[in-house]
Parts: sequence; C-alpha cells; structure tokens
Amino acid sequence: EEFAELVTSRGEPVILTGMPMGKASALWTPDYLTSSGIETDTTVVVDLAGHRKPGTRRNFTFRKMTFGELIQRVSSNCAGSAEEANNKSLSPVVSFGEKYYLRSVAHKAPADLSCMFPSLAADLRPGMVLPGGTGECSHTLWPRDAYHSSVLRIASPGTALWTHYDTHDNLLAQVRGRKTVTLWAPDAEPFLYVEGSSSRVDDIVVPDLTRFPLFSEVSDKRWVASLGPGEALYIPALWFHHVLSHPKCPEFGDMSIAVNVFWRCLPEQEHDAGDLYGNKDPPAARQASELAARAGAAISQLPEPHKSFYARRTIKRLAEQL
Amino acid sequence: EEFAELVTSRGEPVILTGMPMGKASALWTPDYLTSSGIETDTTVVVDLAGHRKPGTRRNFTFRKMTFGELIQRVSSNCAGSAEEANNKSLSPVVSFGEKYYLRSVAHKAPADLSCMFPSLAADLRPGMVLPGGTGECSHTLWPRDAYHSSVLRIASPGTALWTHYDTHDNLLAQVRGRKTVTLWAPDAEPFLYVEGSSSRVDDIVVPDLTRFPLFSEVSDKRWVASLGPGEALYIPALWFHHVLSHPKCPEFGDMSIAVNVFWRCLPEQEHDAGDLYGNKDPPAARQASELAARAGAAISQLPEPHKSFYARRTIKRLAEQL
Repeated sequence: EEFAELVTSRGEPVILTGMPMGKASALWTPDYLTSSGIETDTTVVVDLAGHRKPGTRRNFTFRKMTFGELIQRVSSNCAGSAEEANNKSLSPVVSFGEKYYLRSVAHKAPADLSCMFPSLAADLRPGMVLPGGTGECSHTLWPRDAYHSSVLRIASPGTALWTHYDTHDNLLAQVRGRKTVTLWAPDAEPFLYVEGSSSRVDDIVVPDLTRFPLFSEVSDKRWVASLGPGEALYIPALWFHHVLSHPKCPEFGDMSIAVNVFWRCLPEQEHDAGDLYGNKDPPAARQASELAARAGAAISQLPEPHKSFYARRTIKRLAEQL
Repeated sequence: EEFAELVTSRGEPVILTGMPMGKASALWTPDYLTSSGIETDTTVVVDLAGHRKPGTRRNFTFRKMTFGELIQRVSSNCAGSAEEANNKSLSPVVSFGEKYYLRSVAHKAPADLSCMFPSLAADLRPGMVLPGGTGECSHTLWPRDAYHSSVLRIASPGTALWTHYDTHDNLLAQVRGRKTVTLWAPDAEPFLYVEGSSSRVDDIVVPDLTRFPLFSEVSDKRWVASLGPGEALYIPALWFHHVLSHPKCPEFGDMSIAVNVFWRCLPEQEHDAGDLYGNKDPPAARQASELAARAGAAISQLPEPHKSFYARRTIKRLAEQL
C-alpha cells in the first residue's frame, strides 16, 4: 500500500518493471489461448487505418466473434505463429491488412476480467494486477476500495489507439508483446484539439501542423513509455495517452496482450455512477459545462461591444469561484 | 436625426460644440437659481475627499436640502459669488472644505428633468438637449423613442466622480462651469480593477501602480474631453468615464451645472425594465454571470488537476457559444 501510494502520489506516469502477473506471461501463447476452451463472444474492432480519425467518418467496424477466432486472426498477423498456415483460410472481415483490437468491456456494468474471463484471471494470480484470488498475494498496486473495472486488451501488431484521456486512474499491465504509450499532461489539453475526450491530432509522429498549429507547443512535451512483457504503466486520470502496439518485427512481432485496471481517483460520489468505461467526466464538470454553455448563449444575444464586454466579465466571474 | 446617427454610429465619444440649450447658459447664475422659487427637496452628496474610493468605507454622506440651500452652498465655494458674504453663515454639514454634488435622480422611476424641475427644463428650450417643449425645435441629438431619463448635475468646483460605466448611451451637456471627462473604451475593463460598475483605481492622475499594476496598460489609452458651457459629450454605453468639475480658479472657478440624458442602446426588452439610473447590466448579462458563478462553484469542488482541467474546458465551452 505504501508503494502504491508512492506510485500515484506524484500524479505523473510511472513505469513499473518486474510486475508480478502470475503465470500469464509464460502461458499466454496463441496455442494456449485458442485451445483454452474460452467460449466468450467478443466484440472486436476491425480497423483498417491504424486508428480512428475523430471528426471524420470512422474507418473501423465492429464484429462479433468468438475469443478463439479473435486469437486466430490476431496471431495470423504474427511472424512465426504456429497457426499461420491454418489462418490463411480465414477470409478478412473487411479487407486484407485489417487489424483486430479487443477491449473487453461490458455494456451494462463496468468490465470485470474475473467474471468475463475467469480462467485468464486465474492465470494472472498470484500477482499484483488483479485483486483477490488466492489470498497469498492480496496486494495490488492500486487502492482496492477504489476499484472500478478491469479490461483485457488484445491487439494485432501495429494497432494504434488515438490520443484520449480517461477520468479514472489506470494501470496498464503488458502481458505479451510490446506497446509504446505516448502521454501528455492534462495541461496540454488546449493544444491537442480535443473533441469529447479525444485529440483530433491523428498523426502524432508527423503531425499536420497546418491543421493543428497549436500542437507544436506540446509536441516535445510528450512522455514516452515503451512497455514489454511484465511491465506496467501507471496512467493518471486526465493524462492524454496514445497507445501503439508494436508493429510486426522479428524481435517483438507478436500480438499485444495487456490487462488494465481502472480505479477511482475522486471520492466515489464525485464520479459518474453510470460510468462503464472509466472515461466519463465527473457530473460536476458536466453540469458546469452546461451552465457555461447557457451563460455563453445568453451573452451571445447581445450586440457588440456588449457581447465582448460581458463575456470577459462572465468568464472572470467563473474564474473567481475557483 | 441623420446628425444624431452620425454622432453615435462610430461607437466612440464625440464632443459637440455650440449645442443649442435655450437661455439656460445665460440665465443660470447663482442669483437666478436661488431666487427661482424652486421648492424641490434635493438629496445632495456631501463629499470630503473628492471622490469615493470603492472598497473602502465611503467618505461621503447624503444630506437632504432644498434646491436653494444647495445653490447657496455650492456657489459659496465659488470665487466672486454675490452670496459669498451671506453664505458664511451656513455651517458645514460635515466639515470645512466639503464639496456638494447633486444628481437629480428619483427612486421610483427614472429621473425626468421636465417633471422634477419644470422651470429649468423650460430654460433649456428651445434646444437640442431635452425633448418636447415648444415644438419649434423638436429635434434632439439622440433617438427620441429610446429616451430613458434626464438628470440635473450640480457640483462644487473640484468635485470628482469616480471612474465607472453606465449601460445606456449618454449625452452630457455642460450649461455652466467646466468639466474634464476622462474616458476609456469598454475593452479597458480588464485593466481597471472594476468592482460592480466602478473602477477601484481612485487616483487616475497619479495612479498607485503598486496596487493597480495592470492600470499601466491602459493609462495612456485614456480619452480626455474638456467641456465648457454650451458643449456636450456623447458617452457611449460601457465606456468608463471619470468626471472632474474644474477646481476653483479665476477663469473657470464656478460651480458646474450640467444636464445629461440617457437613452437605450439595446432593444427595450434587452435592458433591465427596473433600471432607474441607466447603469444596470442587461438581464441577459446578469443571468450569464449567475450561471457562470454556479459553473465555477461546481468545478471548484474538484481537486487538482481536475479543477484546472475542467475550468479550461468549461470556459472554452462558454466561449464557443459567442
């Protein structure tokens, strides 16, 4: 607990190495997973372009498939997979080159890995990623009574998740494969062209500075974490993060399997009680946003110079409450 | 009407010379006014320090006195007044050196000079300050159907009125004595330490830049108008103005008498229907301010970094409506 406190107390990302995660790191090969007898139906993102571009038509689709089919498809991207020959027979969902991404969320309650994939949860124990289990290792690296959800993430090599923020603290534990996580502190928000909880800057390696000139202010303020098996990253709430599963290559070219745990960073009543994915803004913030929109709408009726004059004074009034 | 449109169309102060104001300029001597038989009781500001300092205990008091007593007291400040000898018998309200300032407002309806001082209103006609009258001169320098109120202002030499804004357009017509009006555009507001509708920068000649460092940004953006008898100043709504009645001196050392007319600058329903003095913020602006205060209060409950993060987003949301 003291160590967990130490990890989160600075409010900055922390990489943890040598993370205890049971036998999962050794066990979770494509062979093991396809023959595991897991019957769970999964909803998989089938992605063509590597990531979604907010503000454009989505370039991915959802497909329901069994866990076994997912593993077959994901691992057929991987060099040296034993299934490679067989998987040739699986035709693409959309077209060749597509990538697959599972984020095991539920839609009626926050996801819980122990319920959705009990055998995989067992593989992670004894460890410090998931709570409970045998009891011999009851410690986790996050505050147990603030637990929100736990999610399995399986991705084809090269899959990218666009830059976004969550509203819960998050521990991303890498079990297999390799990920590069690029992060920005919450105060980078004004420069990231945020829409909802996602940045519109789709290419963070070669950003389009014509469309996103402000991004140059924070381009070199990124934090970069490279995670391999047995490593975990603490992602504080509101930190923007972009996640890239390492592209296929001789050394790391394997599907990425990670487990992440969300936990509350605010008192329970300040979080949205209906937040399934750990990313809903606190009700106080949503309420403030609505009030501010109404305030802006009221002022917008006035002609100049009244509009600018009262806009400044209204914003000042808001700021005085902080 | 075209000329009136020309005066107001730029949204900037304009000095008008040779303003028709009947026989008032010639007639309104202390002798004439004390012997005018006006019985109206007036509430006079008795001022010790030359102006109020917002944020400190007020350094003026109110005293009810007859119009005749006011004129006696005000003109006893003046060099060469015929009443000077007699007025020695009037003891000070508070102490020697006090100044007197009448602003003829009513408290149940907007002031109307023609009702409160019909004989003085008659002296101003035919002219272009007050509406109506003989009909031979039915033009005013402001839109008649937007008329709000008309106010008589009589001040001892050296009386200053602190920097403030009104929410109605205003024509300040100088009948007797001399005034210096110092103005700032509405966009100077962030630098004027405004509380309510008044600037806390009490000394605009030798400003206290230790207490009011931002004032240096706008100190040389002031507009200065010197008004003598027969001259008038258009003061657009939201323009900050500081008014100094000229101190006693051989040339101009006389009480200041001015008449000002307020008129609506917004559609009638956008002004506060209960605005007696021409200075109430529009209901839309007041409503916006309350909403913004509630928004700020909601966010202020959150700890950092949530508070700063959502404050920025909330203000952005407000600004997007403008």
